Amino acid sequence: MKKIRSHLSKNLKKSPKDYFHEQPGSLPGTLNIAADATLPEIELVDYKDTDYVHQPIETPEDLIPYLDTESVSWVDVQGLGSEDILQRIGKIFDLHPLVLEDIVNVPQRPKVEDYDDQLVIITQMVMPLNNQGGFHKEQVSFVLGKHYLLTVQEEAQYDCFNQVRSRICNNKGILRKHKADYLAYTLIDAIVDGFFPVLEAYGELIEDLEAEVVASPTRKTLEKIYRLRRELLSLRRAIWPQRDAINALIRDDSDLISDHVRVYLRDCYDHAVQVMDMVETYRELTSGLMDVYLSAVGNRMNEVMKLLTVISSIFIPLTFVAGIYGMNFNTETSPWNMPELNWYLGYPACLAFMGAIAGGLVIFFWRRGWFENFSTIQDDYNNEQASQELMPSQNNRAKKIRR
Amino acid sequence: MKKIRSHLSKNLKKSPKDYFHEQPGSLPGTLNIAADATLPEIELVDYKDTDYVHQPIETPEDLIPYLDTESVSWVDVQGLGSEDILQRIGKIFDLHPLVLEDIVNVPQRPKVEDYDDQLVIITQMVMPLNNQGGFHKEQVSFVLGKHYLLTVQEEAQYDCFNQVRSRICNNKGILRKHKADYLAYTLIDAIVDGFFPVLEAYGELIEDLEAEVVASPTRKTLEKIYRLRRELLSLRRAIWPQRDAINALIRDDSDLISDHVRVYLRDCYDHAVQVMDMVETYRELTSGLMDVYLSAVGNRMNEVMKLLTVISSIFIPLTFVAGIYGMNFNTETSPWNMPELNWYLGYPACLAFMGAIAGGLVIFFWRRGWFENFSTIQDDYNNEQASQELMPSQNNRAKKIRR
Amino acid sequence: MKKIRSHLSKNLKKSPKDYFHEQPGSLPGTLNIAADATLPEIELVDYKDTDYVHQPIETPEDLIPYLDTESVSWVDVQGLGSEDILQRIGKIFDLHPLVLEDIVNVPQRPKVEDYDDQLVIITQMVMPLNNQGGFHKEQVSFVLGKHYLLTVQEEAQYDCFNQVRSRICNNKGILRKHKADYLAYTLIDAIVDGFFPVLEAYGELIEDLEAEVVASPTRKTLEKIYRLRRELLSLRRAIWPQRDAINALIRDDSDLISDHVRVYLRDCYDHAVQVMDMVETYRELTSGLMDVYLSAVGNRMNEVMKLLTVISSIFIPLTFVAGIYGMNFNTETSPWNMPELNWYLGYPACLAFMGAIAGGLVIFFWRRGWFENFSTIQDDYNNEQASQELMPSQNNRAKKIRR
Amino acid sequence: MKKIRSHLSKNLKKSPKDYFHEQPGSLPGTLNIAADATLPEIELVDYKDTDYVHQPIETPEDLIPYLDTESVSWVDVQGLGSEDILQRIGKIFDLHPLVLEDIVNVPQRPKVEDYDDQLVIITQMVMPLNNQGGFHKEQVSFVLGKHYLLTVQEEAQYDCFNQVRSRICNNKGILRKHKADYLAYTLIDAIVDGFFPVLEAYGELIEDLEAEVVASPTRKTLEKIYRLRRELLSLRRAIWPQRDAINALIRDDSDLISDHVRVYLRDCYDHAVQVMDMVETYRELTSGLMDVYLSAVGNRMNEVMKLLTVISSIFIPLTFVAGIYGMNFNTETSPWNMPELNWYLGYPACLAFMGAIAGGLVIFFWRRGWFENFSTIQDDYNNEQASQELMPSQNNRAKKIRR
Amino acid sequence: MKKIRSHLSKNLKKSPKDYFHEQPGSLPGTLNIAADATLPEIELVDYKDTDYVHQPIETPEDLIPYLDTESVSWVDVQGLGSEDILQRIGKIFDLHPLVLEDIVNVPQRPKVEDYDDQLVIITQMVMPLNNQGGFHKEQVSFVLGKHYLLTVQEEAQYDCFNQVRSRICNNKGILRKHKADYLAYTLIDAIVDGFFPVLEAYGELIEDLEAEVVASPTRKTLEKIYRLRRELLSLRRAIWPQRDAINALIRDDSDLISDHVRVYLRDCYDHAVQVMDMVETYRELTSGLMDVYLSAVGNRMNEVMKLLTVISSIFIPLTFVAGIYGMNFNTETSPWNMPELNWYLGYPACLAFMGAIAGGLVIFFWRRGWFENFSTIQDDYNNEQASQELMPSQNNRAKKIRR
Repeated sequence: MKKIRSHLSKNLKKSPKDYFHEQPGSLPGTLNIAADATLPEIELVDYKDTDYVHQPIETPEDLIPYLDTESVSWVDVQGLGSEDILQRIGKIFDLHPLVLEDIVNVPQRPKVEDYDDQLVIITQMVMPLNNQGGFHKEQVSFVLGKHYLLTVQEEAQYDCFNQVRSRICNNKGILRKHKADYLAYTLIDAIVDGFFPVLEAYGELIEDLEAEVVASPTRKTLEKIYRLRRELLSLRRAIWPQRDAINALIRDDSDLISDHVRVYLRDCYDHAVQVMDMVETYRELTSGLMDVYLSAVGNRMNEVMKLLTVISSIFIPLTFVAGIYGMNFNTETSPWNMPELNWYLGYPACLAFMGAIAGGLVIFFWRRGWFENFSTIQDDYNNEQASQELMPSQNNRAKKIRR
Repeated sequence: MKKIRSHLSKNLKKSPKDYFHEQPGSLPGTLNIAADATLPEIELVDYKDTDYVHQPIETPEDLIPYLDTESVSWVDVQGLGSEDILQRIGKIFDLHPLVLEDIVNVPQRPKVEDYDDQLVIITQMVMPLNNQGGFHKEQVSFVLGKHYLLTVQEEAQYDCFNQVRSRICNNKGILRKHKADYLAYTLIDAIVDGFFPVLEAYGELIEDLEAEVVASPTRKTLEKIYRLRRELLSLRRAIWPQRDAINALIRDDSDLISDHVRVYLRDCYDHAVQVMDMVETYRELTSGLMDVYLSAVGNRMNEVMKLLTVISSIFIPLTFVAGIYGMNFNTETSPWNMPELNWYLGYPACLAFMGAIAGGLVIFFWRRGWFENFSTIQDDYNNEQASQELMPSQNNRAKKIRR
Repeated sequence: MKKIRSHLSKNLKKSPKDYFHEQPGSLPGTLNIAADATLPEIELVDYKDTDYVHQPIETPEDLIPYLDTESVSWVDVQGLGSEDILQRIGKIFDLHPLVLEDIVNVPQRPKVEDYDDQLVIITQMVMPLNNQGGFHKEQVSFVLGKHYLLTVQEEAQYDCFNQVRSRICNNKGILRKHKADYLAYTLIDAIVDGFFPVLEAYGELIEDLEAEVVASPTRKTLEKIYRLRRELLSLRRAIWPQRDAINALIRDDSDLISDHVRVYLRDCYDHAVQVMDMVETYRELTSGLMDVYLSAVGNRMNEVMKLLTVISSIFIPLTFVAGIYGMNFNTETSPWNMPELNWYLGYPACLAFMGAIAGGLVIFFWRRGWFENFSTIQDDYNNEQASQELMPSQNNRAKKIRR
Repeated sequence: MKKIRSHLSKNLKKSPKDYFHEQPGSLPGTLNIAADATLPEIELVDYKDTDYVHQPIETPEDLIPYLDTESVSWVDVQGLGSEDILQRIGKIFDLHPLVLEDIVNVPQRPKVEDYDDQLVIITQMVMPLNNQGGFHKEQVSFVLGKHYLLTVQEEAQYDCFNQVRSRICNNKGILRKHKADYLAYTLIDAIVDGFFPVLEAYGELIEDLEAEVVASPTRKTLEKIYRLRRELLSLRRAIWPQRDAINALIRDDSDLISDHVRVYLRDCYDHAVQVMDMVETYRELTSGLMDVYLSAVGNRMNEVMKLLTVISSIFIPLTFVAGIYGMNFNTETSPWNMPELNWYLGYPACLAFMGAIAGGLVIFFWRRGWFENFSTIQDDYNNEQASQELMPSQNNRAKKIRR
Repeated sequence: MKKIRSHLSKNLKKSPKDYFHEQPGSLPGTLNIAADATLPEIELVDYKDTDYVHQPIETPEDLIPYLDTESVSWVDVQGLGSEDILQRIGKIFDLHPLVLEDIVNVPQRPKVEDYDDQLVIITQMVMPLNNQGGFHKEQVSFVLGKHYLLTVQEEAQYDCFNQVRSRICNNKGILRKHKADYLAYTLIDAIVDGFFPVLEAYGELIEDLEAEVVASPTRKTLEKIYRLRRELLSLRRAIWPQRDAINALIRDDSDLISDHVRVYLRDCYDHAVQVMDMVETYRELTSGLMDVYLSAVGNRMNEVMKLLTVISSIFIPLTFVAGIYGMNFNTETSPWNMPELNWYLGYPACLAFMGAIAGGLVIFFWRRGWFENFSTIQDDYNNEQASQELMPSQNNRAKKIRR
C-alpha cells in the first residue's frame, strides 16, 4: 500500500479544496492567489435601451467613466490570477475587504450579503464536461449596484454568459429595457439552468447502472456507484445554499432589486427547487442501486454455489461407488469378499447403478428448479442479446408510464 | 456493455425529463413545443345556474364573447402542440409570460402563484395505465379568474375531467350553483383522488412481492422491488408539492376563492395528506422488502451450503475408507500388510463399517435439524401449493386484523 | 407464480383499504356503503347529574326529543350499513355533507374540524385480536355539540365504550356532573388507552423474536419480523394524526370545550405521546432485529462452511495418500517403483502417517477454536434447554436493570 | 419453540412496562398499586438559613405543621406501596387527581405541568447497577410549592438524594440560603448528572465491543450489540423529554421559580443536552458496530473459504493423478496401455509430477497473498497477545488525539 | 476475552471524557482539577492603537492595574492545574461561580452566555496531530468584558493564538485599532479556521480508503473506516454547537459587541457552516465506504468461490472416471466386465475422454466469463501497478471535473 499512498499523495497535492480556508490566525481580507490561476480578463458591456458598448478592458481604471453614467454597466472579470488587478477593481467598486476576500479566495459557500448600496451574491456554476457524467464547478460572484453589475468568474475557459451577452447586443428580449437587477436575475437564472444538463447526464448514467447492476455487476460497477454518490453529494452542496441565497434575494428588502424582478426571481427559485428535487431523487436512486448491487452479488454467489453443489453432489457419491469396487479384498479367501467382481454382469450392473444414482440426483435438482439458475447464468453470457430483449420492453413500459 | 449502452441511449432519447429546463441563458418566457406534442383541442363549458353551453372551440378568439359574461366559463385546452394557438390563448386570458411558460414547458413542479386577478395553479395528474402497476403522469395547469377557469392538459388522450363535465351538463350536485372557484376545487379534487387507484395497484403489487420474496426470491424480484422504489419516488415527487399548493390555496387571501370553497379545499387537502401517507408507507414497506430479499438470498445460500456440506461430509470419509482398501500393499511380504483383505468377512465388515460411519453422520445432521431445511427446499418446489396454504391463513389473519 | 397471483388477487379483493377514496370526479358528499357493512344500531344514553336514560333507538327520529333538552345526550351509532338511516341521522344533527362523508366513507385520517356549533373529531380505535399480536382497527367519529355527543363506530362487534356506559349508569366518578365535552374526553381517552394492550402484545412478540433470532433464525422468523414492521407502521399511521388531533382540541378556542376539560385532554395528549414513543421504539427495535437476523444468517453460514472445511481438509489429503498407494506402478520392473508396498511394516506405517496428518489438522483447527463453533451448533440442537438457561439470566438481568 | 415461548411468557409476566397505562375506559385519577411495590417511607427535611429538622415521618398528617411555616419543607416519599397513604399525602398537598395519578402510576413520560400554585415535574432517574453496563431506572416526581417541595421516588433502595440531604444538614454551599426552587434545581441537577456514570459505563462497553468485533466476533458479540442498542434507546427515551421539561421550567413564567434559579437551571439544561449528545453519539457508534460486525462475519467467511479452496485446489488434482495410475488397464494387451507403470522411474517421476503441481499451486496462491490471510487466522488464535499489541498503540493514539 | 478486558480497562482509566460531569449531587461551582493538568501560565498582551505591552504574569493580582486602563487587556491563561490560581483569577474578573466551573471543568459543550457586563464564550479548538489523521481537541473559553478579554486554554503545549499575538505586536492589520470584541472575533476565527487542516487530512484519508477499499479491502481497512467514522462524529460534536454559539453572538443584543464586528462574525459564521458542511459530506462518504467495503468483501468471496468451483468441477468428474477404471471387476469371468481394460487403445482413449470432459468444462466456464475474474484476482497481486494505472486517470478526471 505504501506505493499507492505515496503515489496518491503525489496526485492529491493538486486535488481541489472543498472550501477555501486561510491559514488559521491570518489577517481577514488577505487575498490568496492560486499558482495556476489565469490572469483576469475584463469584459465590459454597457447598455441602455437605445444603445450599447461591448469591449474588453485593459486596465481596471478604464472602467471608471462607464460606472458614472446612468446606463447599466456589466463588468465581467474572468480569472483570479493577479492580486494587483483584483485589488484595484476592489477599490474602484469600493468593495469591503471581506467581500473581495470571498470573491477571490474560492470556493466559498453560495450566499447573499447586503452592504447597503451593494448586494453581494456568491454562486456556484456547473458545466457538463463531456459524456462521462463529470462536471466543472466554479464560483461566480456578483456585486450588484445601482447602475452596475460586477461578475467575477474563476476562469475564462468556462463561460455560461455568452448567450446573455449576445441577447444584449442583439437587443433580443426585454433585457435592455431593464436595470442591472434584471441582468443579475438573467445571469443567476442561466447558472441555475446550467445544473439541468449535468443532472440529465447523471440521470442517464443511473439508467445505465441500473441495467448493469442487474445484468452483470462487477467491481467496476461498484466503483461507478460510489463515484456517482460522491459527485451527487458535491452537486447537492452547491445547489442547497444557492436556493437559500435566491430565496434571501426574494425576501431581501434592499431597493437594489425591484418588485418586478422579484417575480422573475421566484421563477428562478422554482428552478433551483427542481434541481434540488432531482439531486435528492438521484441520491435515493443511487442508494437503492447500492442495495441492488449487494443483493446481486449475493445472488451470483448463490448461483456459483449451486453449480458447485450440483456437480459435487452428483460425482462424489459415484466416485465412492467406484472406490468400493476398487478395493482389493481377496475374493479367493471367502465367498463373501466382493463376489460382485466375479459376477457375469457385475460391471454393467455397477454402471447401471451409478447411472441410477446420477439420474436420481439430477431429477432431484431439476425438480427443485436449480437448473433454471444455470440458464440464468447462461443469460449472462448472452448479456447483450438478453438486455436488448429486456430493455426495450422496460423502456416501452417506461415510455407508456411517464411520457 | 457497449451494445447495451448504445441501445439504451437510442431508447433514452425519448425518455421523459424529470423537469423541464430551458437552454441555460435563454430568454425567459420562451415556449418549447415538443416535437411529438398533439395539437391543442379547446373545449368550452359555459354555465350558470339555469343554463349551460358545452362545445368545442375552433379558434381561441371564439372564446372572447363567453369570457365577458357573468356565467362561469370553463376553457379546457388539451394538447401543447402549437405555439401560435397557445400564444393567442395567452393573449386572450392576459397571461404573464412566465405563466404561459410554466403551462407550456412541462413538467413543472406543482405550485400556486397569485397574480392579483388570477390564481395560477400547477398540478400533476396520474392515471393507472394497466394492471402492471405503472402510471401515466401529466401536468394540468389552472388559471382561475373571476368568471372563468382555464385548464390546460398535456394530452387529449388522458382526461380525468369527463365526470365533472357530465355533472355540469346533467346538473348533478350543486356544481352549477357555484362560481369558478368551486369548479376549480372539483377538478383539483378529481386530480388528487386520481392518485388512489394508482396507489392501490401498488399496494397489491407490494403484497404480491411480499409473498414472492419469501417464497421464491429471484433476480426478477429484485428488479421489481427496485422499479417499485423508483416509481414511488416519482409519485412522491408529484404529491408533496401538490399538498403544499393546496395548502397555499387554503391560506391564500385572494378573493378569487370564497370561504365556502375553502372548507371544501380543506377536505381535498386531507386527501392529499392521505395520499402522501400511503406513498410514505409503501416506501417504507419497499425498503423493508429489500432487507427481506437480502436475508432471503442469504438463507437460500445457507440451504445450498448445507446440502453440499451434508453430501460431502458423508461421502468424503466413505471414499477415504474405500481408498484405504484399494491400496496395493503386498499382503504376502508381511502379515501386517492389510491383513483385512484376506479376512473371511473382510468385505462385509468393511461395508458395515462404512454404513456405521454414514449412519452416524446422518444422525449427527438429523439431530442438528439440517434435514428440516431440505424439506423447506422441498417446499420451494411445491411453491404454489405451499403458498396456497400459507397465504389463506395469512390472509385470513389479515382479514381478522384489519377488516 | 401465476397461481399465487390469481390466488392472491382472489383474496385481496376483500383486503382493506388504507384510506377510503371516491371514484375520482365523483360528487363531494357521496356516501359509500360497503356491501358487508352491518346495519346501524343506535344506542342512546341521556344523562344529567341526577338522572339517566339508557336505551336502544329504533328510528333516528326518536332522538329528536332528547336532543332538545339540557341534559347530555350521547348517541352511539354502531354500523355503517344503511345510507338511509345515516342520511337521516345527518339531517337530525344538521351535519355538513363533508362531515357525513368523513364519518361514513371509512377509513379517514384522524383529525379535528371546527364547524362553529359542532366539533367533528375523527379517531381510529385499535383492539387486540388474540394472542397472535394482531389487532382490529376501526374508525370512531365524534360530533360534539353543546348538549349532545354523536359517536359513530364501524361495527357493533368491537366496542370499547362499555366501561364508560356503565360508569354513567352506575354514576361512578364525576362523569355525570360534567357536560358533553367531558364525555368526549373520556371516550377519546379510552380510545388512546386502547393502544397500550396492543403495543404490549407487540413488546412481548419482540422479546420472543429477539430470543428466536439469536438462537435459531429461520425463514419464518424473517416473515414475522417483516409482518411486525408492517403492523407497527399501520399503528403509527393511526396514532400520529390522533396526537395532532388531540393537540388541536387543546389549542382550539371553540367554547364547546371548557378549560376544565382541556386539563384532562392534556393528560390524554400525554398518553398519545407515550403511545407514539412506544411505537417508534418498537420500530427501531424491529429494524435492529432485521440487522441481527442478517448477521445471524451470516454466522450460521460461517459455521456450516467451517464444518465443511474441517471435514474436507482432513479427509481430502488422506484420500490422496490412499490414492498414492492404490497406484499400480510395477514394483517388479524397478526397485524405485513403490517399494513401500513391499515393506514389512508398509501398511501400518502408512496408516500411522495418515493418522499423523489427521491429528495435525485436528490440532490446527482446534487451536484456531473452530471446534467451539460446533459446540455452538450443538447448542442449537439443545435449543430449548439452552434458551431456558440463557433466558432466565437475561430476564433476571432485565429485571434488575429496569424494574 | 413452544417451550421457549411458554418459558418466556412465564418470565415476561414480571417484565417492566415501558409506560404505565390504565385499563381503557377506567376512571381518570385511579391509582394503581403494583403488587410488589414497597411501602412508602416519608422523610422530612425542613430548613431555613439558620436551622434545620431532618426526621422520618410516620403518618402523612404529621407533615401539616411543617408545611404552614415559612421555612422550606422537603418531603421525600420513597415507595408507592400504599394507596391509602398516597391519597392522604395527595390531600395534604392538595394535589389534582391527575397529578396524583401521574405520580403513582409509574412510569410516566418526563414533563412539567403548571397548576397555578404548584409546579409538577416528572423526571426519570437512572443509576448504574454494576459493572455490566446495565442501569436501574425509576420515576422521581416533584411537586414544587411556595414553601415546600414534595418528591416521590419509586423505591427506597435506590436514592440519589443523599448527598443533597447531607449538604443541607452540614450547611455546605448556599443551599440553606435559598428557597424551595433552588432545592428543586439541586435535585434535578443530581438526577441529570446521574446519567453520566451510566453513559460512561456504556462508553467503556462500546470500546470493549470495538476490540471484540474486529478481533473475534461471535454470536455473543451480536447479542451484546443488540442489547446495547436497546438500552441506549431506553436511555434516550428518558433524557429527551427530560431536557424538554427543564427547558419548559426555564421558560415558564410561574413565579415559583426565581430568575436567580433560572440561571442555574440553564446550566442543568446544558448538562441534559450533553447527555443527549452522548446518547446520540453512542447510538451512532453502536449502529456502526453492527455494520462492522456484519463485515467482519463476511471477512471471516472469506478466510474459511480460502482455506477450503486452497486445500481442495491442491489435493483434488493430485488425487486425480493418483487415480489415473490406479486404473487397471491391461499393460500386457498393448504397449499403449499405461506404459508408465512399467517404467524404471515411473513412480518417482509420478511423485515428482505431483510435487510440481502442488508447488505450482502453492506459488499461485502465495503470490495472490492468500497465505497472509491464514496468518490473520493465526492471529485470532493469538487473540490476547495480538490485541494487547494492538490496543496499547490504539489507546496511545487516542490519548494523543483527544486528551 | 478476559485478558483483553482487563487490559483495556487498565488503559481506559486514562481515556478522555466526552463531557465533564460532576459527582451527582455535588455542589454547583465545584472546580475539579485533573491530576495531570499543567500549572496555569498567564500571558498578558495589553495594547492600544499606539502602544502595547506583552509579558508573562506571575501572580494573577499583577493583572489588576492593566484591567483598570482603557487599553485592551488580553489575558491568556494556559493550563488548568491549580485551583487556587484559577479561583483568584475568577475573583479578579468577578466571574459567576458557574462560569468558572464551565471554564475549569472541561470539556463543556460550546455555548455563549450573556452576563450583563460579560459575555462568556465556550469553544473547542482542534489541531492536527500528525499525518495519521488524528487531532488534538481542547476547550478554549473566552470572557469578554468592556476593556478586556480573558481566554483560558487547557494546555500551554497546543496554542493557536501565536499568529494573532505577533499581529498585535507587529501592528499588522487593523487589530490594534479595534476594541476587545474585534480581538475576540479574531481568536474565534482562528479556532474555526483551525478545523480546516484537520478536515483536509481526513479528506485525503478518505481518498486513500476509497482506493484501498476497492483494490484490496482487509480487516485493517474496516478498522480504519470505523475509526474515521468515530473521529468525524467527534468533530461534528465540536462544530455544531460552535456554529450555534457564533450565531448567538451575532444575534445577541449585548453592546459588548459592536455592529462593525458583527459583520466580521458573519464571515466567521460562514466558515463554521463550511466546516459543518465538510464534516457532513465526509460522514456521508464514510458511510458509503462501509457499503462499498461490504460489497467488496462479497465480491471477493465470489471470486474465491468461483476458483473453488472451477477446480472442483473440472477434477471431480475426471477423478470419477479414473475411479471407474480402477475398479477390480474380473475381466476373465465375463466379456462384459470392463472390456475396455483390455482394449488396445483403452488407456489413450480413456485419457482422451478425460481431456474432452476437461476441455468441455473449461469452455463452459470460459464462455461464462469466469476466467476474467481470475485475471481480476491477478490484478490484486499487481495491486500497485494496477492502482497506479487506475488512479492517475481517476485523478486526472477529478482534476478536470473539479478544478
